[in-house]
Amino acid sequence: MSIKIKNIIPVTGAVVTPEMIAYIGKYLSPDTQLITSQIKVGTPSIECAYDEVLCSPDILRLCKEGEDEGCDAIFINCYGDPAVRAAREYVNIPVFGGFEPSMFLCMGLADKIGIVTVVKNVVPLIEGNVAKAHFDGRVCCVRCVDIPVLDLQNHEKVVAALVRESLKAIREDGAQAISLGCTAMIDVAEDVQAALKSQGYEIPVIEAAQAAVMLLEVEAKMHLLQSRITYMRPPKK
Amino acid sequence: MSIKIKNIIPVTGAVVTPEMIAYIGKYLSPDTQLITSQIKVGTPSIECAYDEVLCSPDILRLCKEGEDEGCDAIFINCYGDPAVRAAREYVNIPVFGGFEPSMFLCMGLADKIGIVTVVKNVVPLIEGNVAKAHFDGRVCCVRCVDIPVLDLQNHEKVVAALVRESLKAIREDGAQAISLGCTAMIDVAEDVQAALKSQGYEIPVIEAAQAAVMLLEVEAKMHLLQSRITYMRPPKK
Amino acid sequence: MSIKIKNIIPVTGAVVTPEMIAYIGKYLSPDTQLITSQIKVGTPSIECAYDEVLCSPDILRLCKEGEDEGCDAIFINCYGDPAVRAAREYVNIPVFGGFEPSMFLCMGLADKIGIVTVVKNVVPLIEGNVAKAHFDGRVCCVRCVDIPVLDLQNHEKVVAALVRESLKAIREDGAQAISLGCTAMIDVAEDVQAALKSQGYEIPVIEAAQAAVMLLEVEAKMHLLQSRITYMRPPKK
Amino acid sequence: MSIKIKNIIPVTGAVVTPEMIAYIGKYLSPDTQLITSQIKVGTPSIECAYDEVLCSPDILRLCKEGEDEGCDAIFINCYGDPAVRAAREYVNIPVFGGFEPSMFLCMGLADKIGIVTVVKNVVPLIEGNVAKAHFDGRVCCVRCVDIPVLDLQNHEKVVAALVRESLKAIREDGAQAISLGCTAMIDVAEDVQAALKSQGYEIPVIEAAQAAVMLLEVEAKMHLLQSRITYMRPPKK
Amino acid sequence: MSIKIKNIIPVTGAVVTPEMIAYIGKYLSPDTQLITSQIKVGTPSIECAYDEVLCSPDILRLCKEGEDEGCDAIFINCYGDPAVRAAREYVNIPVFGGFEPSMFLCMGLADKIGIVTVVKNVVPLIEGNVAKAHFDGRVCCVRCVDIPVLDLQNHEKVVAALVRESLKAIREDGAQAISLGCTAMIDVAEDVQAALKSQGYEIPVIEAAQAAVMLLEVEAKMHLLQSRITYMRPPKK
Amino acid sequence: MSIKIKNIIPVTGAVVTPEMIAYIGKYLSPDTQLITSQIKVGTPSIECAYDEVLCSPDILRLCKEGEDEGCDAIFINCYGDPAVRAAREYVNIPVFGGFEPSMFLCMGLADKIGIVTVVKNVVPLIEGNVAKAHFDGRVCCVRCVDIPVLDLQNHEKVVAALVRESLKAIREDGAQAISLGCTAMIDVAEDVQAALKSQGYEIPVIEAAQAAVMLLEVEAKMHLLQSRITYMRPPKK
Repeated sequence: MSIKIKNIIPVTGAVVTPEMIAYIGKYLSPDTQLITSQIKVGTPSIECAYDEVLCSPDILRLCKEGEDEGCDAIFINCYGDPAVRAAREYVNIPVFGGFEPSMFLCMGLADKIGIVTVVKNVVPLIEGNVAKAHFDGRVCCVRCVDIPVLDLQNHEKVVAALVRESLKAIREDGAQAISLGCTAMIDVAEDVQAALKSQGYEIPVIEAAQAAVMLLEVEAKMHLLQSRITYMRPPKK
Repeated sequence: MSIKIKNIIPVTGAVVTPEMIAYIGKYLSPDTQLITSQIKVGTPSIECAYDEVLCSPDILRLCKEGEDEGCDAIFINCYGDPAVRAAREYVNIPVFGGFEPSMFLCMGLADKIGIVTVVKNVVPLIEGNVAKAHFDGRVCCVRCVDIPVLDLQNHEKVVAALVRESLKAIREDGAQAISLGCTAMIDVAEDVQAALKSQGYEIPVIEAAQAAVMLLEVEAKMHLLQSRITYMRPPKK
Repeated sequence: MSIKIKNIIPVTGAVVTPEMIAYIGKYLSPDTQLITSQIKVGTPSIECAYDEVLCSPDILRLCKEGEDEGCDAIFINCYGDPAVRAAREYVNIPVFGGFEPSMFLCMGLADKIGIVTVVKNVVPLIEGNVAKAHFDGRVCCVRCVDIPVLDLQNHEKVVAALVRESLKAIREDGAQAISLGCTAMIDVAEDVQAALKSQGYEIPVIEAAQAAVMLLEVEAKMHLLQSRITYMRPPKK
Repeated sequence: MSIKIKNIIPVTGAVVTPEMIAYIGKYLSPDTQLITSQIKVGTPSIECAYDEVLCSPDILRLCKEGEDEGCDAIFINCYGDPAVRAAREYVNIPVFGGFEPSMFLCMGLADKIGIVTVVKNVVPLIEGNVAKAHFDGRVCCVRCVDIPVLDLQNHEKVVAALVRESLKAIREDGAQAISLGCTAMIDVAEDVQAALKSQGYEIPVIEAAQAAVMLLEVEAKMHLLQSRITYMRPPKK
Repeated sequence: MSIKIKNIIPVTGAVVTPEMIAYIGKYLSPDTQLITSQIKVGTPSIECAYDEVLCSPDILRLCKEGEDEGCDAIFINCYGDPAVRAAREYVNIPVFGGFEPSMFLCMGLADKIGIVTVVKNVVPLIEGNVAKAHFDGRVCCVRCVDIPVLDLQNHEKVVAALVRESLKAIREDGAQAISLGCTAMIDVAEDVQAALKSQGYEIPVIEAAQAAVMLLEVEAKMHLLQSRITYMRPPKK
Repeated sequence: MSIKIKNIIPVTGAVVTPEMIAYIGKYLSPDTQLITSQIKVGTPSIECAYDEVLCSPDILRLCKEGEDEGCDAIFINCYGDPAVRAAREYVNIPVFGGFEPSMFLCMGLADKIGIVTVVKNVVPLIEGNVAKAHFDGRVCCVRCVDIPVLDLQNHEKVVAALVRESLKAIREDGAQAISLGCTAMIDVAEDVQAALKSQGYEIPVIEAAQAAVMLLEVEAKMHLLQSRITYMRPPKK
């Protein structure tokens, strides 16, 4: 069975590159396809609740488009999980943002998770997701590197900042695994993990977009679907 | 000082009546004004996460309009608190939906709160708000009367259903106060409270829209403003 | 409707001044009255559980006196909420100490609250109140300035100490709003808030006595009464 | 070393009998003495927060008396733990009420504890103690037999009611051990335990006064004293 | 890359059948291999903590054997996760029992999970796993069908009992997804899910062994390894 | 009644000395006997989950031996509580490891407990026990002195390290009592407590083995037995 995953870019900025798509899909089965689409109405990046609100309606449009195209699963490519609950109500295929699948992989490998994200504005948003998921007992900190989403191209600077904050997460907050808290942190997890290991900390560093598409592939292969008690279909009016 | 509170109707249905406005504002200071505006783009009612997403952008437009009109505070007239966090980032005046202020009044009067809302679809939404606010230790149940928002006009039927579910909340779940979980439940709290008292349960039944405008009036009088650490202004891009 | 709020000074020390009364009532409706009475049997200040026990019986006497005088609500003027639960059982009008209303205002404006109180002895007391209210998920620290209640007159010294501890609460503990943890901290919230803002932290600093009388005014206007399931009347014996 | 434990009866009712003293002290070392004293100012029984407030000052007087008499530990003979925290500040010997030691014994024998107490008024009080101790994860219910403290002499009726509520606690709430939630439930634990066993539930039923004096004996033998960070001595004024 | 997963049968009973192996591996990539080995020292089934202790040393021996054989991941085929933490310390490849991966799949599809297991003895064990993982906020009940592991062959009887308990989990406890709480419940999840759907409950029913091998395949493909802060290598002595 | 407590040394190392036995039993009733036996199959010390698994079967053998010898209670002499739950199922007399009884004594004397153990490997193990017992609200840190169990003989070095970490627990984490997190820390609690007092911190420092045998003596005297709902007897197969 060949799986098609809709990869929805939930921002209007020119953020998509072939390298990014390759990176995200790196561990998928060879015949699984990532079908990337970008919203047209919204903000260039998502860095606060305000951005989420403006991007969410067009995300839902693309979710429906994905379902109509015969996709088996939908990835809303953002760590903040914008419109994820609404999308699960709206379409009849599984949906993930970046937060939840990243947590699941981390929690299978470590007791306490440190999240390192981009900017301060996002921290309360992610803490809200942690609380809503009842994961406060597992997430020991949400830190940020203070680099806006649209400035994440400088690979060296981003890695250095992530290592710095990850070390604080480990030493000050007790983190035992790191979840990179923004799906635009491409191709850095490996270098951060290696740098932490060289400091004596051999722990997993999880990139959320890879986590998401891998778990969506699993859900699609297993024909899993969201609970219709948790996510009832939107009522007709 | 005369206070102006923007009362945003976050749905497109014909739900606003003079009686409703009078009821909501019943306990406000005589010189406090409620300025009611309704969104133009969205769904007729909000009964799931999908509805919230579609209504939220236009809610934010009205929040800004309220701030520009010189309002002192904003009430997003829905128990689900749609776009409340985004609005707090976006405008420089305090903002409430119905959930939070209803909880604050209930928690000052009782240890354990039962929420009784409209339809099943809303239950996981409200439970999500409870978890996000870390109020699981205080809210003992979220029940519903199974009546859609747009059918709430039948006063007798609504009261009977609310009494039935409130009694279950008290007897089976240990509720000690009832929060009516939809801001369209107008003019029923008093009758529900009286009916419960006649059954031997003398407990407060809190109507959320009244709770919200009363607490917004307090915030406005005290010149309170949301924390800019929790709610940073949306970054310029 | 004109509201009368009994303001019970639950200590025997000479702590009441006209300035304090004016400050507490600053934001009340013009026709709301604060009727201040002080206990006669107890300790000069409340700084530990031992003090609370000795002051509580006379607090209850004044609660009853307030009800008999036709008051609409009772404020037990102490952040530790001494005898609040007993008073709610005893009288048929709403009752607040300083802790709960301060929490409600803070939680409407920020996710994580830092409490800054007077002396170390009070910290476990306040932490007990936090636990009892199930607010551990919202209160990130209880710090103290190490100044006894009866030495709080030195305005400059108190403000400087509060700013110092508030900055630690923000930077080390993640506080996003500050609750002043003693109702004798008069006329300092504004200066603390301004000082924090000048350091880049634009967050609310809530004075508890003002919070209490404002929320009692709301409860009185709305004819709210404590739940008689949570607070049953003392049984006749 | 011979231990002296002050047994403070924190109510004014004629509740003390030689049988009760013998029952409480049944498992103590032969040379441990129970020195029973009763308060003079207070209420006949403690069945609500109001009663606790009125009895607490005289409890403290007897605590001091106990310390001055050379007692090694103090038992405040009430499940509600009235004045326990204040007493720990006030005297320099260990202090227990009934709630905490009963919990410790139960938690060593079972995962989930059901508390069965006297009257409804006490339930929120005990639930407050549970929350304050952070034992919500271990206590699955607080039920009551609806028999006032001063009517507990009818042994058969009390046992029957305790068995009935304990069975509900087991079957409906998942209780795996029962803590009798009033220290005036004398000589019934054994019969309740036997009755539950005859129904197929072989679980411990813990009497709180026995639990308390046994653990105080342990504390006294080990020369343990309350933490002076948690319980600072009352400040001189 | 071809993945090899060691499937450790942690009991000595004759429970392995070709159908079971086929069922577990049903959704794996075609070139992934399941290498099944069974312990030699232990108990016929695992139904309590005592059984876990007796089976665990030989489980560890097989884990090491799996690693030495070049396996990429290890599945300890039991919902109780026996020896999982020890195995993660001991070998340098990822390890899962049934509990954790089942939770991860369920939590991606529903808010509240009901677990339905075999016998009463296992319930406190699973509740312990839930608490240890800090998943109390997500798991709403642990129920059992009261059928011993070694009697699970009667397909019809098992399905009927699972449907009965799942309906109680949904209706009485609020379950929104069902996790089958024993890895010997083979080939029943589909029938249980269909039966629940026919009753109006369209929710996922997750079989834990399938969940485990699918997530181990993901971990192996992504080269993930347990955190060496959480799971340090056993110290040399 | 003379009590016999089986003291099971759950490791194979030459750790038992007459001084250790005398120290552990120091506060027991004169006629209570400690019957010490050591396992024969296992690891020299328990410092990780792997060690626990290897030692546990022989611990169970000795538990049974203890019961057969007519012992009244069993102490599994390790802070990690290895095989404690299994032993409670297996034998019909009460069982403690070091963790639980240490917690009970600490929680009766202080609100927040700091645990100071031997090596880093044990920290996640103890944190797991804390979570499983639902004591997260009471335990504020698990720290370690970084000294392996088998190097604990150097009294001065051990005391100095314990004081250093206890001071961090107090100052950085808010500990109000210290639980020594390894039952091989013999004869040091008194010195640590004295050193902390000399620094201004008058708090209890609890040695776990003493705590365990004292509480087992209480359980034996009171004829208490584990709940057979929590700990059902191992099923016959």
